[in-house]
Amino acid sequence: MAKKMNAFYAQSGGVTAVINASACGVIETARQHKDKIGKVYAGRNGIIGALTEDLIDTSKESKSAIAALRHTPSGAFGSCRYKLKSLEANKAEYERLIEVFKAHNIGYFFYNGGGDSADTCHKVSQLSKKMGYPIQAIHVPKTVDNDLPITDNCPGFGSVAKYIAVSTREASFDVASMCATSTKVFVLEVMGRHAGWIAAAGGLASDEETEIPVVILFPEVPFDRKKFMATVDEKVKQHGYCSVVVSEGVHDADGKFLADQGLKDAFGHAQLGGVAPVVANMIREDLGHKYHWAVADYLQRAARHIASKSDVDQAYAMGKAAVELALKGKNAVMPTVVRTSDKPYRWKVGEAPLSKVANVEKMMPKNFISKDGFGITPKCRKYLEPLIKGEDYPPYHKNGMPKYVRLKNVAVAKKLDEFEVK
Amino acid sequence: MAKKMNAFYAQSGGVTAVINASACGVIETARQHKDKIGKVYAGRNGIIGALTEDLIDTSKESKSAIAALRHTPSGAFGSCRYKLKSLEANKAEYERLIEVFKAHNIGYFFYNGGGDSADTCHKVSQLSKKMGYPIQAIHVPKTVDNDLPITDNCPGFGSVAKYIAVSTREASFDVASMCATSTKVFVLEVMGRHAGWIAAAGGLASDEETEIPVVILFPEVPFDRKKFMATVDEKVKQHGYCSVVVSEGVHDADGKFLADQGLKDAFGHAQLGGVAPVVANMIREDLGHKYHWAVADYLQRAARHIASKSDVDQAYAMGKAAVELALKGKNAVMPTVVRTSDKPYRWKVGEAPLSKVANVEKMMPKNFISKDGFGITPKCRKYLEPLIKGEDYPPYHKNGMPKYVRLKNVAVAKKLDEFEVK
Repeated sequence: MAKKMNAFYAQSGGVTAVINASACGVIETARQHKDKIGKVYAGRNGIIGALTEDLIDTSKESKSAIAALRHTPSGAFGSCRYKLKSLEANKAEYERLIEVFKAHNIGYFFYNGGGDSADTCHKVSQLSKKMGYPIQAIHVPKTVDNDLPITDNCPGFGSVAKYIAVSTREASFDVASMCATSTKVFVLEVMGRHAGWIAAAGGLASDEETEIPVVILFPEVPFDRKKFMATVDEKVKQHGYCSVVVSEGVHDADGKFLADQGLKDAFGHAQLGGVAPVVANMIREDLGHKYHWAVADYLQRAARHIASKSDVDQAYAMGKAAVELALKGKNAVMPTVVRTSDKPYRWKVGEAPLSKVANVEKMMPKNFISKDGFGITPKCRKYLEPLIKGEDYPPYHKNGMPKYVRLKNVAVAKKLDEFEVK
Repeated sequence: MAKKMNAFYAQSGGVTAVINASACGVIETARQHKDKIGKVYAGRNGIIGALTEDLIDTSKESKSAIAALRHTPSGAFGSCRYKLKSLEANKAEYERLIEVFKAHNIGYFFYNGGGDSADTCHKVSQLSKKMGYPIQAIHVPKTVDNDLPITDNCPGFGSVAKYIAVSTREASFDVASMCATSTKVFVLEVMGRHAGWIAAAGGLASDEETEIPVVILFPEVPFDRKKFMATVDEKVKQHGYCSVVVSEGVHDADGKFLADQGLKDAFGHAQLGGVAPVVANMIREDLGHKYHWAVADYLQRAARHIASKSDVDQAYAMGKAAVELALKGKNAVMPTVVRTSDKPYRWKVGEAPLSKVANVEKMMPKNFISKDGFGITPKCRKYLEPLIKGEDYPPYHKNGMPKYVRLKNVAVAKKLDEFEVK
């Protein structure tokens, strides 16, 4: 690409504690190559910002504001859940994208997201060939679900894992203090509808030095009430208490979600509850133990205050590598984390073709779940531990609150007619 | 007290992120006065350990293990919810206490808890006068509910407040990223059945530099669905999103808890749910917004990883001061936090008679809640902010997990017959 082109960057899907660290990596690296990359325009609310020509001029942000993205959770430019249809099914969208790219001289497309986003990015990468518009599309991996293939792990996951591991250990210490006369079982609901990566992190609460009775309910293992109760009962008998980490996606052998208990309020209205209270109620019914339950929900993926240093470093590195791949002339690729050693943990940046990433969901290997179905294996621990390694605290204000940055998010002047996103 | 006596220390009621810091203060200070105080015996599982003669010899713990209590959440010796009846109602219990104290040469009684515990401690302090056993009883304040009188605040509360403030800010950043096309309202359920101190901490998520639309549901304000929905609707219209922090104790004008919606599962079994899903479901019904909800439960009071430095310092200081008061010959008192300046925050240790502490619940002042009933006033902020000031991180293992200590908790040899606690 001889002419100096601008770059487009967007955040996609559920945000994480470190997706802004990737944004930081993209923007800081692009700024170091002003000879080759012009401005970085961010899509306001993800790809929708590209379709509606709602672009943010990141060059209006100070060096320190961009640097602060590294320690700020959530998506600084806004995100969305929107998957482009195929070129055949909705050509108008692709034509619009090209129109916007042309109008703003965009030659680089950096898309920061999970599996669906990798698919969108892959489609954009084909615009050169299929519609004659020269663009290099690079995907920046991000997902708390850790379900992207090829890369050893996904930025975003390590910090959720650390939050869940630390929180489970802390709450378990609490229950252990109370169990002689009060609460005996603590139930924590975690994210992960299809894969049990996050639930597995609950297993890290217990280790050789600090053993804790943790029972994990994975979405990979059909729920067996009798077997589960026998396991909880045994742990309570042995340790006096027990912690249960339950994935939101746990279901029975027929595929029915445990969370879906057909709850109705006093007026007969259907109520949506979580799976944690369901499991807790079952424990009360079957074993009679006093329980407490928590649902971490957004807290787990937003908890930048307890982010993993590995995760922050990798999120930044992925953003940086994406720009470097673009500068090397690459298209339709995604930088990856390649693990080169478990102990000491070492990793380097690799590269994967988007054709092999898009729409492929990486499930937990079967040998990561213990034989009884309620715990993690040493192999799983060996994989997970490096991902929660190290602390990377945000700075704090004098009033005790973390210093998270809010960007100015100055809009780029529109040049085109409106476009309606359906 | 001429003869060198041993001390008894026990933790009572719900544990906190910093109650062990008070234990650390008691034990380290007692160890500095070996000329006057013999051993510190801890009650296993609180006062029950005294009644059952289940004492822990803290002198068996290393200096570093005791020091590590300062950064370890939960109750290292176990806690319980057990309130002594009056001397008239259950004289046998008091006779047993005296028997145990005599058998183990105990002359100091340090009791670490909230309002109910202050009452128990007060009763024990009267044993000298009423039953002729010389003992000095000092209460060490602790409660996440912040509801003890006289003391400016209670150790345990500041760290919960920091956890809730930080978590609400982080989750709000998350929702703000998603709100254009997805989740618009985030609901976080927090502790506090009678007083809204913890819910008020949600208000700290928003400040001058980082404004966030937060709606608080206090137990002090009867729930008015229509008014609440109008407020949420207005915030969403103005900011695109809104966070709701709801106290578990929120109830309607008739005193009916909002959490108590008579939920039944598909089989008609009563289900216990939290208040967060109830509020979230109402928002869906009335406003149609996509929502997420979380229940922090034990995570909030166990979260030593995000403890407030003010809180840790004060928890330690209260333990230390309790021993110093005992050495001064005091009985039936509690050390307190006395605030001497808001900005810069300054405090010193004071002292309160237990007769004025026991069974008195400090409610939130009315002028701490904004006129509309959904927020905190500047006065409240001025009070709360110093309490979450400063960070005090625990050390971490190389594997990314916090280093929390587990004591050996060696039992003191029993000298008496068994005693049944009813």
